[in-house]
Amino acid sequence: MSQPFPLPLPMQRALQLARAAEQAGEVPIGAVVARGQEIVGEGENRNRRDNDPSAHAEIVAIRAAAARLNDFRLTGCDLYVTLEPCAMCAGAISHARIERLYYGASDPKGGAVEHGARVFTHPQCHHRPEVYGGLGEGEAAGLLKGFFGGKR
Amino acid sequence: MSQPFPLPLPMQRALQLARAAEQAGEVPIGAVVARGQEIVGEGENRNRRDNDPSAHAEIVAIRAAAARLNDFRLTGCDLYVTLEPCAMCAGAISHARIERLYYGASDPKGGAVEHGARVFTHPQCHHRPEVYGGLGEGEAAGLLKGFFGGKR
Repeated sequence: MSQPFPLPLPMQRALQLARAAEQAGEVPIGAVVARGQEIVGEGENRNRRDNDPSAHAEIVAIRAAAARLNDFRLTGCDLYVTLEPCAMCAGAISHARIERLYYGASDPKGGAVEHGARVFTHPQCHHRPEVYGGLGEGEAAGLLKGFFGGKR
Repeated sequence: MSQPFPLPLPMQRALQLARAAEQAGEVPIGAVVARGQEIVGEGENRNRRDNDPSAHAEIVAIRAAAARLNDFRLTGCDLYVTLEPCAMCAGAISHARIERLYYGASDPKGGAVEHGARVFTHPQCHHRPEVYGGLGEGEAAGLLKGFFGGKR
């Protein structure tokens, strides 16, 4: 069987962060903000560790990148995340002016990009990123399945 | 003209926080988390000061309450905010398991409770708060109108 090209480096890193979250007892989701070919922010799910309902991987990565770049707008930055963002994170992606969103597994239960609230589709959405789904889907979904399978 | 009953104390406080945000050059929005009759978290818009695209008043108040209560779920807590929450904040309100949401001004442009993404209406929404709009609407809307009027 032929091998496909490897995943973009930021998605490889996001998957690594998802595994680290799982090791820490958190839902295995990771995210990376890149500006051009430089990684400027990283995050993994930290809800339980930080007692923070907003601490999804995307929010953690966006906050880290914005702090590093000293700007509350991440214009020209891209976000890589292992799972389809929820409404909270999709909203934050708009606020941050993320240019391209790459995500791994689709999330019919909690996703708000191609499911449910479909945050980027409304006239009220003041900024829509380009969206690319399914990047590293197999590994991202496998991590989540293993985590939730092990919990039940 | 008869005087109505005063606003609930947490909404009065949220309006005070909105005025403080304006003084600091931020969009004048304030939020308070209450557990029963105790205020357990407060927030004002801090996007610019903190270089944080997620730092809406609601997120700041929710994070403060969760840190104080050492719990990433604010079960049994209520949120008071001067403006209809956006998709990001509505999502955070669900994640935090906020019991009752009281908001002031309606936001046809960026709101995601009664407008746009209508985050609480989808089957994917895992927790819906009770929602009460229009509380302190006049003052909350006046603050925003003054702020954006002054900017143009």
